[in-house]
Amino acid sequence: GARVRAWARGHAARGRRVALVTSGGTRVGLEARPVRFLENFSSGRRGAGSAERLLQAGYAVCFLHRARSAFPWARSLPPHGAALLDAFRIAPGEQPAVAAEAAALPALLAALRGYHRAKEEGTLLAIEFTELQEYLELLRAAARALEPLGSSVMFYLAAAVSDFYIPTSELPEHKIQSSEGPLQITLKMVPKMLSPLVKEWAPEAFVISFKLETDPLILIDKSRQALEKYHHQVVVANILESRRTAVVIVTKDSQTPLSLSEEEIAQGMEIEEKIVNYLQAQHTLFIEKKI
Amino acid sequence: GARVRAWARGHAARGRRVALVTSGGTRVGLEARPVRFLENFSSGRRGAGSAERLLQAGYAVCFLHRARSAFPWARSLPPHGAALLDAFRIAPGEQPAVAAEAAALPALLAALRGYHRAKEEGTLLAIEFTELQEYLELLRAAARALEPLGSSVMFYLAAAVSDFYIPTSELPEHKIQSSEGPLQITLKMVPKMLSPLVKEWAPEAFVISFKLETDPLILIDKSRQALEKYHHQVVVANILESRRTAVVIVTKDSQTPLSLSEEEIAQGMEIEEKIVNYLQAQHTLFIEKKI
Repeated sequence: GARVRAWARGHAARGRRVALVTSGGTRVGLEARPVRFLENFSSGRRGAGSAERLLQAGYAVCFLHRARSAFPWARSLPPHGAALLDAFRIAPGEQPAVAAEAAALPALLAALRGYHRAKEEGTLLAIEFTELQEYLELLRAAARALEPLGSSVMFYLAAAVSDFYIPTSELPEHKIQSSEGPLQITLKMVPKMLSPLVKEWAPEAFVISFKLETDPLILIDKSRQALEKYHHQVVVANILESRRTAVVIVTKDSQTPLSLSEEEIAQGMEIEEKIVNYLQAQHTLFIEKKI
Repeated sequence: GARVRAWARGHAARGRRVALVTSGGTRVGLEARPVRFLENFSSGRRGAGSAERLLQAGYAVCFLHRARSAFPWARSLPPHGAALLDAFRIAPGEQPAVAAEAAALPALLAALRGYHRAKEEGTLLAIEFTELQEYLELLRAAARALEPLGSSVMFYLAAAVSDFYIPTSELPEHKIQSSEGPLQITLKMVPKMLSPLVKEWAPEAFVISFKLETDPLILIDKSRQALEKYHHQVVVANILESRRTAVVIVTKDSQTPLSLSEEEIAQGMEIEEKIVNYLQAQHTLFIEKKI
């Protein structure tokens, strides 16, 4: 809380807008000392890619992300494992050193340059969560810390947050035994954070939520229902299969499809560039009270 | 199957023993186009660390692991994210290069040396899984491919495999809607793979399973029950909280605790070194038909 507040105040004083980006999936334990978990699918690519774009667009970004999920710039490095080891070689000599292989160099240089710039400017504040409960507490603390910045704060809620959990009092103490037969689990609903976020924690902020569905027929309706229920500004609606190349930006009175052309995909462009460009402009209008 | 068979045959011809190490947790989808999953907790550290030790002990290792879980040697690198980016710097010059920071160098050099040795000798064959179904199919194919090697094969089954799943025919097609209230999930039991592995796929092999519990009172009993039920050679029994520093090696007629002393922990020793040393000796006795 205090750390986020001081960091945000410093950037706001220098005229920077601030974005809180949430990213990655939450984890919900099924036992008190859990060996099994309910996970919401998310690699964190959407959040990490968007955070990079927002930083490039001049925002200071508080990146509230699932531990080990995609991270700005690091996401361009090979995945942890053999591919990562293959990206480096031992440079022989009296003082042995480790250097990047030629094939890995361009991506690595670009990643390090972007990361170092953000680090020098102090514009990236990274905070990790793993459990659902941690996420909820960190989001609340961060939102309250950003509240004084009013409409210049953007909440970009790209994390995949569980809708369901088992209350601590109902968790079995020990590992569920498979010898006891099929497993029946009853999960309660997680209270939606959008409601207190918009009403209490940061009522003047520009708030964007994400809606991921698998059924295209209900996507836009569900997005409109969310806007009506929570009174926030934008829903970015997307379908699981096409989420990397197409989204619909839904507001109270508009519906704007964004997508990548075949050519843009071939050039390696990412949909997050279009999403952030669009939302940055919307945020400007919002600050100027034009929407 | 064919790839594992050819690889194993080559090493066996040169007198190497072969180990199949499974590592990491399986994932079980809760929807037909899943956005939610049941996950078994496992970082893959046990499996990856054991694979390193087995390779050092002269085994050829087929490493059947969850994608993105801990990988031999790569596990010594900083986690993907800011820590990984911080381990490297841009070395300026006409031809910009990327080099390891001094602080990261010792771990990185050791990791690359170990990895390159295994790569040159072709002793590490890495295969990835994510879904439970994939794991089961790959394990069966690999086991059958290794069957001709008889007792010189070790199965080191350290993966955290789900005991429960939802049959495809019972999966909801689309994302479960939270607006429909609390969630009730019924999961069926996954057939145990140890039974066909020991009876049919590789009946002469030296088979080690792992048992993780949270309740110390039932750990040894559950391990003995598994040995009686599946007729394999060894259960490595461990408790969630102490798994990094203590295990019990359980066989039909023995029970051997292995643990790290405070001093060994301070020196950075890993329990996997003791586990592999012990099991390698047991495997020798097994091949010589002395146990």
